[in-house]
Amino acid sequence: MKGLILLQWKPNRTIHLSLHDQIYNWISARIQQGEWTIGTKLPSQRKLSEMLEVNRSTVIQVLDELKANGIVESKLGGGTYVSNNSWNRLLNHEQPNWHKHIHASIHEPNFHTIQLINEHEQDPSMIRLGTGELSPDLLPTALLEHSLQTISLHARDIGYSEPKGSKKLRVALSEYLQKRGIHASPESILIVSGALQALQLISLGILEQRSNVFQEPPSYLNSIHPFQSAGMRVISVSIEQQLKKTLKALKGKKQSLFYTVPTLNNPTGRILSIEERRALLEICTSLHIPIIEDDVYHELAFEDAPPSLKSMDQSGQVLYIGSVSKTLSPGLRIGWVVAPEPVINRLADIKMQTDYGSSAFSQQIVTHWLTSSLYESHVGRLRQQLQKRAAFVETILTKDFGQIAAWEKPKGGFYIWLRFNEPIVHKALFQQLIKQKVLINPGYIYDPKDFHHIRLSYAYATLEELKEGLHILVKAINGVLDKN
Amino acid sequence: MKGLILLQWKPNRTIHLSLHDQIYNWISARIQQGEWTIGTKLPSQRKLSEMLEVNRSTVIQVLDELKANGIVESKLGGGTYVSNNSWNRLLNHEQPNWHKHIHASIHEPNFHTIQLINEHEQDPSMIRLGTGELSPDLLPTALLEHSLQTISLHARDIGYSEPKGSKKLRVALSEYLQKRGIHASPESILIVSGALQALQLISLGILEQRSNVFQEPPSYLNSIHPFQSAGMRVISVSIEQQLKKTLKALKGKKQSLFYTVPTLNNPTGRILSIEERRALLEICTSLHIPIIEDDVYHELAFEDAPPSLKSMDQSGQVLYIGSVSKTLSPGLRIGWVVAPEPVINRLADIKMQTDYGSSAFSQQIVTHWLTSSLYESHVGRLRQQLQKRAAFVETILTKDFGQIAAWEKPKGGFYIWLRFNEPIVHKALFQQLIKQKVLINPGYIYDPKDFHHIRLSYAYATLEELKEGLHILVKAINGVLDKN
Repeated sequence: MKGLILLQWKPNRTIHLSLHDQIYNWISARIQQGEWTIGTKLPSQRKLSEMLEVNRSTVIQVLDELKANGIVESKLGGGTYVSNNSWNRLLNHEQPNWHKHIHASIHEPNFHTIQLINEHEQDPSMIRLGTGELSPDLLPTALLEHSLQTISLHARDIGYSEPKGSKKLRVALSEYLQKRGIHASPESILIVSGALQALQLISLGILEQRSNVFQEPPSYLNSIHPFQSAGMRVISVSIEQQLKKTLKALKGKKQSLFYTVPTLNNPTGRILSIEERRALLEICTSLHIPIIEDDVYHELAFEDAPPSLKSMDQSGQVLYIGSVSKTLSPGLRIGWVVAPEPVINRLADIKMQTDYGSSAFSQQIVTHWLTSSLYESHVGRLRQQLQKRAAFVETILTKDFGQIAAWEKPKGGFYIWLRFNEPIVHKALFQQLIKQKVLINPGYIYDPKDFHHIRLSYAYATLEELKEGLHILVKAINGVLDKN
Repeated sequence: MKGLILLQWKPNRTIHLSLHDQIYNWISARIQQGEWTIGTKLPSQRKLSEMLEVNRSTVIQVLDELKANGIVESKLGGGTYVSNNSWNRLLNHEQPNWHKHIHASIHEPNFHTIQLINEHEQDPSMIRLGTGELSPDLLPTALLEHSLQTISLHARDIGYSEPKGSKKLRVALSEYLQKRGIHASPESILIVSGALQALQLISLGILEQRSNVFQEPPSYLNSIHPFQSAGMRVISVSIEQQLKKTLKALKGKKQSLFYTVPTLNNPTGRILSIEERRALLEICTSLHIPIIEDDVYHELAFEDAPPSLKSMDQSGQVLYIGSVSKTLSPGLRIGWVVAPEPVINRLADIKMQTDYGSSAFSQQIVTHWLTSSLYESHVGRLRQQLQKRAAFVETILTKDFGQIAAWEKPKGGFYIWLRFNEPIVHKALFQQLIKQKVLINPGYIYDPKDFHHIRLSYAYATLEELKEGLHILVKAINGVLDKN
């Protein structure tokens, strides 16, 4: 659980009631109205005083009074919690023990480090060195706003959508993918709410429980849970050596899939060569292991990347995933899957049972961008801007990190997979940096045994922030190295 | 599987190649490119000739040639399938057996009748007497288009959203719900992609496997699968008699939830009285059975409905679900959950793992409608229009159905739960009506033992279609009754 973040309310200094009483009443009301249930951890004294913009002493007095009245309680190890008894004290009602419900339920929570990242990303004073997202400066906000004015709505387009998504968008995508050598009829395309949903649908729709999902380490898949939560075994295999033998032995008689990001891998930024692609496709085909090709960074290669696996796929072996989240706007929540038609029909059926389709408005906007020249000219400009940002960060790395770390020149996308010579990227470093208002994506969220790397993103923070954040980072690292 | 619907391609009559050869090549290419995999059922001869706009004899010749070449095969019981052998014939490649993958996987497919409904809804010549959706005429398309022009985008609003959804929208909802007596801070609201996703998240996030989900029969829950697919036991209980005793016995030691649509129930249209609401809330509270209150039809009551369970909930017992799909536009895909904050935090965490949030554009549109007078004045007009449509249908029912069926005067929403005196609503009737281009929602999709009812919707079809469709319906029913 994330605890109680993002409080809105503040006491009103212009009314008669004292700050103390206002805060006491407000906390009681949260508990009484069932928003903060038994066992809920209250924000820390420091945090409450910041949020409510009152002195810490006021907060302490209120908490003491709540404790004296049996409404909250302190626990060993720190923290103030809504007490078991709070109800009797406040209202004499019974309330469900939600924490018990949550702990027994099916879906795995996000890793704690990832929850912390999600949480601290809400703090505008954080310098975000790891965020896999376009900076607000790089989003075509004005052009998107303008395009909203030119879109004409038809009533039939804003009802529930067809199971596979807007036909106009699927026709547009069929033509767009054709230019990249992927032959996909509109019937073999499913519109989804981003690439992550595609993985979720695949895990629910075409795999039996305890299937194998192979991936190369380090992998984006380790930082998300669609397969794990559905009961799949996620297994890391290196694609460099004896892949066929390894896969054959690991597969046994189980259904299996191979997940790969062949172009601009997340987190490493690597691009598989044409030979590596051919070999991977051939091995998986001969072993009957379908491939999930996650190709969301494809358009962001600084020079032409080799053709996608899907364009080389003659046998319906590859499930191909694309998205506009990395290129146009993540807020649109539009991605797509290309796969054999029976697979698409199946995934569409599950999508209809999950959310009845993706936003018709978002689909209409993406259709407009793909069918005009807007999308391609925007992506061209974006690549140039990302390349400039990459060069800016590389200059700083060369100057300040040359003695302690190594990296490859980025070939596109958002990331530099920065490797420190010493294994120093532990959770303690991550948390120390948060205190210094710098947020990193440590390597261990992509490979639990990796304490050498961080995924550095040059896409999100401003240039000044990148400069300052890297400065704080190198000082923190040198501090740890000095201690060792 | 739905089979291969929605073909786009048609042979080109202006080029040199014969229709026969074009169609042969096109089908071969679908198979060769892996879109139609081994075991895929081809559309019927009749359907192919309709879709491709060629004579049936041409289709038969092409299929015969494909069969002779071992690419497709006929099966006992009818139908033409991509043959096991097709690959060797076409390409000498191996392809995955997708059907095996799909059949072994986790998620349940939709019921066959519901798949047929989804499929035939794509046919514009169908009269849709059951569709639970606003008619295109009732959607505020022009106002929505106009509002797109007045929305100003900010870069921060179109990136990935906060885990709980747009803060502006949650603040607007907090105020909107306050008017209906529901006190919910923005932190205890989660934005979801429609009410169905809310159910999906609840089933994954706060229930252990094999928990009980209680519902009143007949129930919308029987027509969708979010709980069943997550391994929950869905149990029908009548709320009329000895509810407490029944629930207590059925619950045993299992975690349980009670799902209810207290205002304008789907499919029955029933509104629980204030006494029934109080009793239900009290019983569930005393048995520690949280309630899911699905309140998506609330705004469509022709006269004020009693207060929601959530507004009477003093102990965080009720998970409240709302949506704009039934009032503004299903294409927006925007709904919300109101619940105790730990529950909302948990559901937000899972939502982030599922699809990284709902469309920022849709959220912005809904915020604009809620914070201006647009939403409330539109809903006011909509209620009047629905009331007129209900009266129109009632007049026809009184005239033509009075001898064979009974119903209650609708109190709002979309539906009349039409009860035939005889148990004649079987799948055969459903399928016969499809042939006559009339699509109904038979009662058995809401209660497998119910062959008396259909869910009649006065919200979707035009008035002429309603008239014609009901005419065809009554003739079909009388035909069945005459035979019995």
